[in-house]
Order: sequence, then structure tokens, then C-alpha cells
Amino acid sequence: MAKSKDNKKGTSDQRVSKAVVSRLSLYLRELSRLERAGIETTSSTKLGEMLGFSDAQVRKDLANFGQFGYPGVGYRCSELISTIRQIMGTDQKWPVALVGVGNLGRALLGYRGFSNQGFNTVAAFDLDPKIVGTEIEGIPVFSLDNVDKIVKEKSIQLAILAVPATAAQEVAERLVEAGIRGFLNFAAVTLRLPEDVTVIGVDLAIEMEQLSFAMTSRIP
Amino acid sequence: MAKSKDNKKGTSDQRVSKAVVSRLSLYLRELSRLERAGIETTSSTKLGEMLGFSDAQVRKDLANFGQFGYPGVGYRCSELISTIRQIMGTDQKWPVALVGVGNLGRALLGYRGFSNQGFNTVAAFDLDPKIVGTEIEGIPVFSLDNVDKIVKEKSIQLAILAVPATAAQEVAERLVEAGIRGFLNFAAVTLRLPEDVTVIGVDLAIEMEQLSFAMTSRIP
Repeated sequence: MAKSKDNKKGTSDQRVSKAVVSRLSLYLRELSRLERAGIETTSSTKLGEMLGFSDAQVRKDLANFGQFGYPGVGYRCSELISTIRQIMGTDQKWPVALVGVGNLGRALLGYRGFSNQGFNTVAAFDLDPKIVGTEIEGIPVFSLDNVDKIVKEKSIQLAILAVPATAAQEVAERLVEAGIRGFLNFAAVTLRLPEDVTVIGVDLAIEMEQLSFAMTSRIP
Repeated sequence: MAKSKDNKKGTSDQRVSKAVVSRLSLYLRELSRLERAGIETTSSTKLGEMLGFSDAQVRKDLANFGQFGYPGVGYRCSELISTIRQIMGTDQKWPVALVGVGNLGRALLGYRGFSNQGFNTVAAFDLDPKIVGTEIEGIPVFSLDNVDKIVKEKSIQLAILAVPATAAQEVAERLVEAGIRGFLNFAAVTLRLPEDVTVIGVDLAIEMEQLSFAMTSRIP
């Protein structure tokens, strides 16, 4: 199921990859923590234990992408970090557009977690003439009317969509026309876009559910 | 590993539960989608396929919490939905405090996804006298100085922490004193809090990595 057919780095089944890639993100964060702590090697067992996965799960996830680890040594943290970054495409810098500079948009412009992982917000777009032409958190705000030009100039492929739900579909279509190929969608609607455009929806309630579960399971 | 010892509903190992609970959230969303589409039953195979997990994974996750499903029928969607909600503690309403009414805080006050899952933001807290005493998105903003009183009055146990990273630790300690037992932490710092307090950190870059992976694996 979770295997790509003949392409070591990818799979065309997005639903399969989503679970695996989520775990890769978690492995990456644990490995980075280990590396910062000066620990040079780890194993599928240790990595799994830190995250609540079996060692078999860790090995199976990584086996989708090649052969890693050394007998008697395990994984070299720094090597596995750069391999995972390569697999996930975060070994390169991604210029990103933020679209919709409302409260959420402003908050996301100030969010540092993105740039740490190679996602550089290089342009913001809105329709409000009061903010078009200004800079917010050092990022220039452009009119959505100029999106074609700016997206091309700055070679932007990814957009963070933070517009109201009612506007999301229309704005997303406009962005696809301008050349955007992938969306992180914060609007609470399912976008209908061409098949070759990737949309990742953000559902913050999932995180809240982690919290209520932990609270519930603590109450005797 | 992912089993609790003698408590059907919970586990004391937060790291083990996190992966399982994330999947429960995803099962819940797929089941709700099926139910809305008028589909009454499903199976571990179908549920797994929709999400890219094996049927064994689905059965194993659910087996942590009891015995579900019927031979020759599979799972009844509505029944499994209410069971999962029970397991996750979202069969009840959780009054929630939002702390830090900056851009992110305001955006979160307007976020509808929380209340859909039973998380009701009933109070916001800030220090800015310009907004204390006002209502934002229908939610009253209180001074952080009154947190003890309000948290008790409204029986709040959960807080969404949206304060600047530099203030997060101090504010979180203050909230724990007031009676908060669980945090959804948007501040980019690791909070050091008593062991019986649950903290879930939100890392939006993980979602961006899904996007870059999908984009990378599409490029031949």
C-alpha cells in the first residue's frame, strides 16, 4: 500500500503518502533534537519509542525511500536528517505566497516555524487598498490583481490560503491560473481544483482532540 | 506499546497515545464524511484505504479501546463515531480559554473548527486595556489579572496559548495556578510545566512539509 511503484522518491497516491510523510516529519524533529543534544546515532527501536511507533513501522516507512542505517550502528542522525529533508523536498528553499492578510494571515506572516523548514514567505496578497503596498513582518503586501506578475517574478509555487471560507474557491482558482501548484488551506472549505494541484487542509481541531483525549484518559 | 495496562479508556504514556489519537481523529473525520453521505457501515479495510493505513493498523488502533465491529457487517459508522468521541473525550463540551488576543488569538477566536468538535471558547484573556472588557467574535475579553476568578466561574480546564514566545512560560505558569490542566500551545517554545499538565504543541510546518513532499514527488 505505502509503496511507490517505480519511483524511489515519490508515490502518486497522496492518501498513502500523507500518513507516511506525517511520520517522516516526526522522525525529522526527533532526529534534529538528538543532533542538537550531541547524539550521533540512533536506531529504529529508539526512534519508534520516542514517538510511540514500533521499530517495524519506522523501518517500513524509511524502506519506502531506500536503504538506510548501518549494521551495529543504526542510523546516523545527521545523514538521516538530510535524507528525510531530501525526500520531503525541504532540502531546498520554497518561496511561498501568503494570501489573505486578515488576523490569521498576519499571524502566519509572523510565524517562524515555516522559514526554519525552508518555507520563505516572499509575498503577501490582499485586496484591501489600506494594506496593499505596505510591508507586514518585513513581507511586501501586493494587490491580488498583480498576482500573475509577482508569482512569476518570484517563482512562487506554494500558497498559504488564509482568506474567508466564502472567498476561498474563487481566490484559489485565480492563484492556480497564476501558476500556484500547492496550497496550505486554512479556509474551512474543500477546494475543487485541477488534479495536479496539491491541497493540504489544516484542521486545528485535531490538535485539540489530542488534548481532550489526554485529559479524559487522566481522569480515573 | 500502544496498550494501556488496566485502563480501557486511557494510557499514561502520552507519546504512545499521540500517534494512535491522531489516527482516531482521522477515522472520526472519514466516518463523519461517510455518515453525511448516507453510508451506514464500513470496514477496517475501507477505512484504512481512505487514509492510507493497513486494515491491521485500523483494527489494532481500535483494539486499544475495546471490541468494535460486527462479523459480516463491519463497523456501524454512527456507533463508531460516538465510541471514538467517547474515547477522545469530545462527547462532552469543553469550555476553553483563549489566552493572548493578538493576530493569532483573534484568528483563533473566529475559527469554527473548534466548536464543531465540542471545544467552546468561553473567555479570552489579554493584558491590553484597550481590549479588556470588549467582546471579540462574541467572546468576552478579560484581564489576565482576573484569570483565577473566571477560570473557576466558567469551569475552564483547557487553554489555547497564543501569546508571544517570550511570555509563554510565565503566562502558562499563571494559568496552571488558576486551574488550567491542558494547553494547546502555539508559542514556539517548549513549556516546562508540572507533569500532570498536558501540553500539545502546534507545529504548522509539518503541514507545509506534506505540501513540499507532494510537490517534490510529482516532479519527475
